[in-house]
Amino acid sequence: MKALRYEQNHLSVAEVARPLSAGEALVRVTLSGICNTDVEIVRGYAGFEGTIGHEFVGVVESAPDKSLMNRRVVGEINAGCGACPLCAAGDPRHCPNRTVLGIVGRDGAHAEFLRLPVVNLLQVPDEIADERAVFTEPLAAAWGITERAHVSAETRLAVIGDGKLGLLCAQALALTGAPTLLIGKHREKLKIADARGIETATLDKVKGRAREFDVVVEASGSESGFALALDILRPRGVLVLKSTFHGTTNIDAARIVVDEISVVGSRCGRFSPALDLLKNNAVDVESLISEEYRLKDGVRAMQRATEAGVIKVLLKP
Amino acid sequence: MKALRYEQNHLSVAEVARPLSAGEALVRVTLSGICNTDVEIVRGYAGFEGTIGHEFVGVVESAPDKSLMNRRVVGEINAGCGACPLCAAGDPRHCPNRTVLGIVGRDGAHAEFLRLPVVNLLQVPDEIADERAVFTEPLAAAWGITERAHVSAETRLAVIGDGKLGLLCAQALALTGAPTLLIGKHREKLKIADARGIETATLDKVKGRAREFDVVVEASGSESGFALALDILRPRGVLVLKSTFHGTTNIDAARIVVDEISVVGSRCGRFSPALDLLKNNAVDVESLISEEYRLKDGVRAMQRATEAGVIKVLLKP
Repeated sequence: MKALRYEQNHLSVAEVARPLSAGEALVRVTLSGICNTDVEIVRGYAGFEGTIGHEFVGVVESAPDKSLMNRRVVGEINAGCGACPLCAAGDPRHCPNRTVLGIVGRDGAHAEFLRLPVVNLLQVPDEIADERAVFTEPLAAAWGITERAHVSAETRLAVIGDGKLGLLCAQALALTGAPTLLIGKHREKLKIADARGIETATLDKVKGRAREFDVVVEASGSESGFALALDILRPRGVLVLKSTFHGTTNIDAARIVVDEISVVGSRCGRFSPALDLLKNNAVDVESLISEEYRLKDGVRAMQRATEAGVIKVLLKP
Repeated sequence: MKALRYEQNHLSVAEVARPLSAGEALVRVTLSGICNTDVEIVRGYAGFEGTIGHEFVGVVESAPDKSLMNRRVVGEINAGCGACPLCAAGDPRHCPNRTVLGIVGRDGAHAEFLRLPVVNLLQVPDEIADERAVFTEPLAAAWGITERAHVSAETRLAVIGDGKLGLLCAQALALTGAPTLLIGKHREKLKIADARGIETATLDKVKGRAREFDVVVEASGSESGFALALDILRPRGVLVLKSTFHGTTNIDAARIVVDEISVVGSRCGRFSPALDLLKNNAVDVESLISEEYRLKDGVRAMQRATEAGVIKVLLKP
């Protein structure tokens, strides 16, 4: 089968054997999405080698649980050991021995087939087309912020970064009723949030703004985004770090101490609430799709995903 | 009067006018303590110029409230505007227009006299001698961690740094019943915690230790302390930043995101619980006193405070 692989500092579409399912489900990928983490992996983040990609929708080709056969599914990306207390509690996201689809020790989704434990799979309701279902993982990550920071109608909220993650975070968190400001550099991208009734602002309009926000989500992955967050947070506010940062980041730790800020990391969310949001058309994901490439053109697609103005690039096997 | 002043990049004991009290209390300082923040100010932190020092005990010389006259007092160091919602709620610690004794816009405690608003003063119970009362401010700061992070008998807690702040944090937080490990470089300093029944370890004994701690207090003020905290925290653990960091700090932001760590800044605590701890002899502060200097020798005392093996240096006007 074809797979988009990063090996020995080289990205290519290669012909490889179908993954052995070995007690897991084998899924035929129908669509996958390129995430910024994929781009970072190709820059050396996480030291991963193998098939990249972790956002997908597909159809079960084989599974130990026969009721799953031919079902359309999405899949949570952390595969736990199944034995530790975290896995026993049903949440393998921090299992110390986990593999992570396309990120840690497990071939990923930019391929014709992938495998995952059966417990990771969720059936996709018929109402959600593939082009929307493929956003389940990043939308779950956006909604996962609510596990890490209290966001309600009383929360003055800002999201920094108008990329695909920032646009999803702003849309998802605005559903809590929190007055939400999305801050970005690109008027064209901000318009997607505008259209959902979310307040937006370009960077120049925000600098020097009062320190009025209770929660700021940093979704730009840049040091300047981190610094801006500290500038606009109220004392004892919460800075949610959402992006994949590669390498070390210079921060003003004294500000964190003096203003008693909480910097809260947030990684993966659960899929079930994200599927509900998609089913209820609560979030606009279609407008985030910039282009769809064939998997065989995966290298070009990855390049395209890093270009200015591009939001989400999808791959079709 | 004499005052230890930092002005135009120069530290000296100068003869200056007594502070005008102008609606505030005038306090004759009987003892003051040198804090690491004082040392950082003389290195340029906070851009402060004037009389340094914020840990003190003294006697009220004059006050609008006559009942305070001749009372032995300690004083909370943040003086609010009195008008903003935070001040109205009785907590000026984050008042945007606050002054801070010896740190922001207000002459400090390494002097014969200081002034503070009456509301900042707390009477010192007779049971607490001056040599112990002078620790009220740093002990309040240590106890203030409980406002920012949940610490209980179920919390696996580590404190990094065996300086005066780390020794106070470990002692204060151990009172919650949390099994506490104090990590430091100096066997002599760690012995003070040992004597209170607190587990201690030198750095070399901790590296490579399992990621087992729920809460880690960083009280060393060093990048390596921050990195060690990330190494020993469990996923979704809490890293309390307690020290004054000067300049920018390089951190591994990806670790914060991937392990979903909360980095929580903590600055000042309330004095009332600290006075209770001192009154009940719940914390050993006497052992932290390395030396007492006369105020006139304040420059030498500040030098001494930075030397290896030295813990708390006190100044007597």
